[in-house]
Amino acid sequence: MTACAIGLDVGGTRLSAGLVDTRGALLAHAQESTPPDGPAATNVLRRLTLELAERARRGGHDLLGVGVGFGGPVDYGDQSIVMSHHVGGWETGLKLAQQLAEGLGLPAMLDNDANCGGLAEALFGAGCGHRSVLYVNIGTGIGGALVLAGRVHHGAHSIAGELGHCVVKPDGPPCTCDKEGCLEALASGSALGREGRLAGLGQHITGREVAQLALEGDATAGRIVDEAAGWLGLALGNAANLWDPDVIVLGGGVAEMGERLLEPTRRSYQRTAMLSAKATPIVCASLGYAAGVIGAAALLFAPCDAAAGSA
Amino acid sequence: MTACAIGLDVGGTRLSAGLVDTRGALLAHAQESTPPDGPAATNVLRRLTLELAERARRGGHDLLGVGVGFGGPVDYGDQSIVMSHHVGGWETGLKLAQQLAEGLGLPAMLDNDANCGGLAEALFGAGCGHRSVLYVNIGTGIGGALVLAGRVHHGAHSIAGELGHCVVKPDGPPCTCDKEGCLEALASGSALGREGRLAGLGQHITGREVAQLALEGDATAGRIVDEAAGWLGLALGNAANLWDPDVIVLGGGVAEMGERLLEPTRRSYQRTAMLSAKATPIVCASLGYAAGVIGAAALLFAPCDAAAGSA
Repeated sequence: MTACAIGLDVGGTRLSAGLVDTRGALLAHAQESTPPDGPAATNVLRRLTLELAERARRGGHDLLGVGVGFGGPVDYGDQSIVMSHHVGGWETGLKLAQQLAEGLGLPAMLDNDANCGGLAEALFGAGCGHRSVLYVNIGTGIGGALVLAGRVHHGAHSIAGELGHCVVKPDGPPCTCDKEGCLEALASGSALGREGRLAGLGQHITGREVAQLALEGDATAGRIVDEAAGWLGLALGNAANLWDPDVIVLGGGVAEMGERLLEPTRRSYQRTAMLSAKATPIVCASLGYAAGVIGAAALLFAPCDAAAGSA
Repeated sequence: MTACAIGLDVGGTRLSAGLVDTRGALLAHAQESTPPDGPAATNVLRRLTLELAERARRGGHDLLGVGVGFGGPVDYGDQSIVMSHHVGGWETGLKLAQQLAEGLGLPAMLDNDANCGGLAEALFGAGCGHRSVLYVNIGTGIGGALVLAGRVHHGAHSIAGELGHCVVKPDGPPCTCDKEGCLEALASGSALGREGRLAGLGQHITGREVAQLALEGDATAGRIVDEAAGWLGLALGNAANLWDPDVIVLGGGVAEMGERLLEPTRRSYQRTAMLSAKATPIVCASLGYAAGVIGAAALLFAPCDAAAGSA
């Protein structure tokens, strides 16, 4: 009998669901596109949950509960959604995980999707074996998580880990959060796309395409990536001076550039981080898109001894 | 029989020592100026330690150990000094606390002085009753500490809490750490003094004097303080986005300005912090200079239940 949990990753584009065992293995997986309204999305998620619960029952697994990673701000203490940007009709205060687990007699946990991704990488991915992990997800936006001894540090208001909205360039470009010069406005996929368009790389060029051009050696795209990496390294250096993790793990679409992004990021990081924190490794995430589902399920797992026990 | 510990605060100007009980009360206190060389400073500290140990014995107290707060970087895991800026002849790797407690048969603990100040404020001062405290000491330089559930978070390399060396204004003024635009270069007492001299307030004006002029309503000094508070608020807002404490406590000489500093700091903080973290209180430290000695002694105390138990 394998102990496992259902993980649901609720994004603006896709709803992913999986059955995950306590060693982080994905035993079953399903995915659908996200309906634009809340009740329809809830129905899809509820159906996926019931299917996976049935699958666990048939497989003779010990089902620990249902975990939900939500693509937007969550009040972890209250276990509810703060704001739903992508899906209409899910209002503030909705206890989505509890609702999806209704009638199953199982514990349910809700967290922000970046926290779930960070938890997965810390327990089973690139951060495995380290006591403290700073995880940063660089996609369209920038999210992040602090994981300490196998648990997400949420902070007093469930804000912790929001490196994307740290201001690194006062009076810099406007951010989606209404501030200026946030890391997200300088180093996200959206920022790469914006800079690519401003630099004349194409009227509709995306961040992903700018990244691809940089990988192929285009000088203009390369300069844009180096500039973004400079801001990213500075933000990571500041984060190290404040929280000093054992390892920094970068996930999300933009981080798939790998060393082309990491190398200039590390240079900038080392100019910002203090003393021995300069040596902190900065590595790519290893679980890919499955991290969201695995981390959502891992909300139901107790911290693994390896992570909690190390120095 | 009262349980207590000896706390030693080792600064570049003064050596302070105290006998502190587990509720944070100072039962005895002594202070001397810091000799410029290591062996002489060690002798003074050793004498103060023996006097307080004898005092504890005579008072019938249960002496838990000797705690040392050192004014410079410390390797907490190794319990040794990383660098001694102010006192010559104390070399890297010196286990100062262990040396001072030699022959007493008592546990000894060494930490950075800002961490000790933060621990004291979290357990017994302005942060008491809060689960997580961000403490920032604004004096000649800027130090800081993260205290969670009654314990200092040191991080992987004993760097955690170094808000003073987070870069908030890229290409800003040079910092003592060789970087540019660190918070310390923009909002410390040294920075206030430098800006005062640049603004023509006096060829030798100090940060303390600039602060005093601002309190008295001088417009130029007021502008300098507002500018410094703006950078401080931005750094605190970024720290809240990353670590999200329950409360932010400001100590040190510059923070003695009180509301004149806090009010513009809060305004800038609220422009930087996200969502509900905007509401985090920013308050002045309450223990004054005794915080260093109290916190050094508190290195020997287990986390208090009140701090560890709250949400």
